[in-house]
Amino acid sequence: MKRVKLVVAYDGTAYHGWQLQPNALTIEGELNKALSALLGEEIQVTGASRTDAGVHALCNIAVFDTESLIPAEKISYALNQRLPEDIRIQSSEQTDADFHPRHCRSRKTYEYRILNARFPLPTRRLYSYFTYIPLDIQKMRQGADFLKGEHDFASFCSPASAVESTVRTIYELNVEKVQEEIILRVCGSGFLYNMVRIIAGTLIEAGRGRIEPEQVRRILEAKDRRMAGPTAPACGLTLVKYEFDPESDGGCYKNTGNTAEL
Amino acid sequence: MKRVKLVVAYDGTAYHGWQLQPNALTIEGELNKALSALLGEEIQVTGASRTDAGVHALCNIAVFDTESLIPAEKISYALNQRLPEDIRIQSSEQTDADFHPRHCRSRKTYEYRILNARFPLPTRRLYSYFTYIPLDIQKMRQGADFLKGEHDFASFCSPASAVESTVRTIYELNVEKVQEEIILRVCGSGFLYNMVRIIAGTLIEAGRGRIEPEQVRRILEAKDRRMAGPTAPACGLTLVKYEFDPESDGGCYKNTGNTAEL
Repeated sequence: MKRVKLVVAYDGTAYHGWQLQPNALTIEGELNKALSALLGEEIQVTGASRTDAGVHALCNIAVFDTESLIPAEKISYALNQRLPEDIRIQSSEQTDADFHPRHCRSRKTYEYRILNARFPLPTRRLYSYFTYIPLDIQKMRQGADFLKGEHDFASFCSPASAVESTVRTIYELNVEKVQEEIILRVCGSGFLYNMVRIIAGTLIEAGRGRIEPEQVRRILEAKDRRMAGPTAPACGLTLVKYEFDPESDGGCYKNTGNTAEL
Repeated sequence: MKRVKLVVAYDGTAYHGWQLQPNALTIEGELNKALSALLGEEIQVTGASRTDAGVHALCNIAVFDTESLIPAEKISYALNQRLPEDIRIQSSEQTDADFHPRHCRSRKTYEYRILNARFPLPTRRLYSYFTYIPLDIQKMRQGADFLKGEHDFASFCSPASAVESTVRTIYELNVEKVQEEIILRVCGSGFLYNMVRIIAGTLIEAGRGRIEPEQVRRILEAKDRRMAGPTAPACGLTLVKYEFDPESDGGCYKNTGNTAEL
């Protein structure tokens, strides 16, 4: 028996998210199906980030146990032959038997992309949220500054989620503009359900002048989801980087994770 | 009667190219259908670049004549409501009655994108040609240098085409690498059928070491399609810029064209 870690990239457009659901196409479901067929045993992967329907990833992490004698590094090649073209394994390797991607400290980086132009651009429609309303990126940056650091992000969490604590740390939250695309890049210790999309929706409100940037501080303090902006559409969101904390406590994988970025 | 010029962006993935064909989905066909329905008269557009099946554009040009009283600038908004989401008008404006996009001097810029990584990336699969074979961009640049300037590009032209002259001018041909993507950017006075894709296919041969960069000069001199590399796949190609020459002779549009880029 060995434990294998996969780095998984996908275009989330056609999927009902990562998490296995009956009668719905999911990334986890496709991985289980392809791995079970390849290895000839029932495989169930455990994912690091349970991304929502329509959200993309360059480097989500999945682990599974297998009795197979196929070397772990070869599994990526064989698995890609069996997966649909919108899911591609970026690497596979053997990992510690007690490595669990959700039980160890990590840093995740997401990008939220907004195409801010007069008209939509077809080649970006699946990977960027479009708005023709001019956004002031200076105001978005001012709003973003209030969110950096350790805070209770209850206002930026979908009420559907049931978590013990809504305290999280944002290490980095940048707003930059590349041609007509505004890119929010956020790195954190972990994210609450819909947190990045609610942050994006709130900073868009600041960018278009519907709220003052200082309002973002008051939204944070209110700890009330109704105070924040709308949940921005899924298509704009991509998980771009995953790092495991090398000083994480026992049982955790000691290497840094994949840093695929494009 | 007025003549209207459209700047048209599209994701070519689902289309059998620009040019109208019976029983096939084409960009021209979709434009004619949507314009005819919007304006209540039979409209036939004339395109600047008849891009191939699967090729994308940020700014192709179409012109048509109409009796409609709708102001030309408003047509873009109304037309976008009737077009599929993989075609989007970027602007519409009235133009000279004798402006014809293929009869006046212009500069077109195409990008050919190659994802050069160990494994394909799903979010780039529709817009980039993937190869895992490592490409040496210095060698690609050395090969590209032989193609700059005015030459007879008969070796870089699909034999299916019937044109009077195969002499064209390449003003610019750059090879750059952005993360794992190699981008060939070529600006010219006009291109022969499949010319950019054959240039890309040939420079890929140089990049992987199957031919020496100096061989590109001999291919050019041979004026024989069989000497050049394969036609690289359509999905990597995007028309990114269109400029009309301000010194073009009579009857031609005097402004510079659209420069949408992303």
